Amino acid sequence: MPDATPSPDATGEAGPLAGLRVLELGHFVAAPFATRLLGDLGAEVIKVEPPQGDPVRQWGARHQGHAPWWSVHARNKRCITLDLKKPEAREIVLGLISHCDALVENFRPGQLDRLGLTRDALLAARPDLVIARISGYGQDGPGRDKPAFGVIGEAIGGLRHLTNHPPGSTDLPPVRVGVSLGDSVAGIYAALGVVAALWRRERRGGGSAAEVDVALTESVFSLLEGALPEFGTLGSIRQPTGGGIPTAAPTNAYRARDGIWVLIAANSDPLFRRLAALMGQPSLAEEPRFADNQARVRHVAALDAMIGAWAAGIDGSVLEGLLEDAGVPATRAFTIADCAADPQFRARGMVREVEDPLHGTMLHPGVVPRIDGRSPPPRSTGPQIGADNEAVLTGLLGLDAAGIAALRESGVV
Amino acid sequence: MPDATPSPDATGEAGPLAGLRVLELGHFVAAPFATRLLGDLGAEVIKVEPPQGDPVRQWGARHQGHAPWWSVHARNKRCITLDLKKPEAREIVLGLISHCDALVENFRPGQLDRLGLTRDALLAARPDLVIARISGYGQDGPGRDKPAFGVIGEAIGGLRHLTNHPPGSTDLPPVRVGVSLGDSVAGIYAALGVVAALWRRERRGGGSAAEVDVALTESVFSLLEGALPEFGTLGSIRQPTGGGIPTAAPTNAYRARDGIWVLIAANSDPLFRRLAALMGQPSLAEEPRFADNQARVRHVAALDAMIGAWAAGIDGSVLEGLLEDAGVPATRAFTIADCAADPQFRARGMVREVEDPLHGTMLHPGVVPRIDGRSPPPRSTGPQIGADNEAVLTGLLGLDAAGIAALRESGVV
Repeated sequence: MPDATPSPDATGEAGPLAGLRVLELGHFVAAPFATRLLGDLGAEVIKVEPPQGDPVRQWGARHQGHAPWWSVHARNKRCITLDLKKPEAREIVLGLISHCDALVENFRPGQLDRLGLTRDALLAARPDLVIARISGYGQDGPGRDKPAFGVIGEAIGGLRHLTNHPPGSTDLPPVRVGVSLGDSVAGIYAALGVVAALWRRERRGGGSAAEVDVALTESVFSLLEGALPEFGTLGSIRQPTGGGIPTAAPTNAYRARDGIWVLIAANSDPLFRRLAALMGQPSLAEEPRFADNQARVRHVAALDAMIGAWAAGIDGSVLEGLLEDAGVPATRAFTIADCAADPQFRARGMVREVEDPLHGTMLHPGVVPRIDGRSPPPRSTGPQIGADNEAVLTGLLGLDAAGIAALRESGVV
Repeated sequence: MPDATPSPDATGEAGPLAGLRVLELGHFVAAPFATRLLGDLGAEVIKVEPPQGDPVRQWGARHQGHAPWWSVHARNKRCITLDLKKPEAREIVLGLISHCDALVENFRPGQLDRLGLTRDALLAARPDLVIARISGYGQDGPGRDKPAFGVIGEAIGGLRHLTNHPPGSTDLPPVRVGVSLGDSVAGIYAALGVVAALWRRERRGGGSAAEVDVALTESVFSLLEGALPEFGTLGSIRQPTGGGIPTAAPTNAYRARDGIWVLIAANSDPLFRRLAALMGQPSLAEEPRFADNQARVRHVAALDAMIGAWAAGIDGSVLEGLLEDAGVPATRAFTIADCAADPQFRARGMVREVEDPLHGTMLHPGVVPRIDGRSPPPRSTGPQIGADNEAVLTGLLGLDAAGIAALRESGVV
């Protein structure tokens, strides 16, 4: 049974950003993810797509002819089509902008200018507009015009170097994180920037436009903790450490008998004593080479091998149970199936059943961050191409049926 | 030459969040990162530490007796000490709260209640307070009290399963991303939630308290793109794909002669033609097995082997130059040294020299997101323990020297 069909939640309120209207001139992941987060928090989002649709509509697996991802990626959005190369489209965008608080875009830097949607034109339409621009490398600087590819940006941000086994331990390449991490993190930062600029506008009583500039490379680079200040003071270059942590042991993934990887974090003296006892070798915790964290870090290879040999004799779910009973923090590396079944995710609405007209009952992730204890279901799922053309063009711009038909005939919408 | 010493920037404005005051009851990474982001955007942050200091002061490498990370992690913050177990501390916190717009904390769920800092007490001190709580699993649900370890949370969020080579290709464990990704992403979400709730408060004209609840597990889980809706509709379980992307080829990291990993993203037909020509094998792009992306994905192992063999004969920097000249998106996997030297990061103030009284001239990362084209230097670097006790207790609470001395004697500060 679905726990909710798309609708405002029981309080009748869409979230803290209710009352905010955002225009998305976005495609792929970063800008659409930013507006999805704003929509999740209650903002009204109008997404502009080319008449052939955002490519993400076709990305990943298909179900009943549609990408399931789209249901989530475009939820709480109204989708309209516009061929931005047509002169009429520019006027429509500027008309919509006059009704919006913010614009989020991820065209290549300068591209909107070339389409006539300059900063001046946008601010003439809406003087207190907040414009958020997401790009590979930022809106200025010598590298701004390089083509933006996620895997390239993540590597320039310094993350790819770190997602690897220690130097010399394998010939395999450093792994990709497995998701478009840079795009998503850039999207969260863009949402933060939009809301911060809008807070300032409210605080000042209006009239305060702003421009938010988020680079994929810089979003990734922002995650590197102490790496830059340590390099700047000491010249030390952080290196990858595989499954472990360079300053703590034991903490790693160990393969159980049935092939499941189980994370075990026993990197304090009391936790390690519990683990050693569970392994049937309580004296390990007394040996000088394993007696404290510093010693364990020095002998981590031997330690990991012993824990690995022990884990390899036990099935993953049994191993998880033993570790939980012993009070040692541990978990299997969750697949999406494990996430979907997790009681905590389910209890907090982070995995929820939703009715989608294109798919039937399906699963959506919940809203992060949760605000006021509410876990609102989506108000709508990702719509079909141009589904909201009439509603938006009539509702906001006052076009009549004949006007919309003319736009359709000339290929503008 | 440092490009700036800590000070407000030339416009005299600290950022869009100037005028906002935030109290941090945080430690380790997540809550302090959230407040660092708010401080970077102009908020005034007061951080409360136990008298022995936040453990991060000792984390990672040391330079002149101090962790360089601290200079960044606590920049733009005023640091005061309080032993929260002492009854007097509770009154001081509530007194400070009355002067603050928001509180960010990452104690275990319920811990602040046990210290007498209940929601009711906090709201009595400041009726329109925004409270952001960051935890491993969230503030409610059957799993809220499990101990929170970053590596465990990231695995439960579904990311660790994906940071691996394809099943069967290695016995090595899935890698850790190399940074505390879950903590950092949770921190960004918390900052977003705080500002969203404060926007609502301003919009409503005040009086609107809020509680923001961010879980590390859920923050990671939010990054999984289409994995959940695909599982929910099709039952498909996303699997790790090593250095590549399952739906595009060639895109991977290839090791140059000098051991440097170079990312090459030539996964469109025109890009692959350029790469094949550069490799001296233009006919590759005409072979049926490599003629389009679908075919290349099917034969990706053979393709990666050929590109790898070619790359292995050329030094990394030469390879980068050849690929750039040929118009094929590529980059080495940046180490922190590469990041620090990058002209684009330098031009945009993302790598900047800063004067720190504890370290001298050092490197700080810049502010993400950039707003209004400004890249403000930090107003201050991470201070020593209790550096702001007098200023804050006198300035906000009106304590005199004798009162502060008494608190110090009784171990409260």
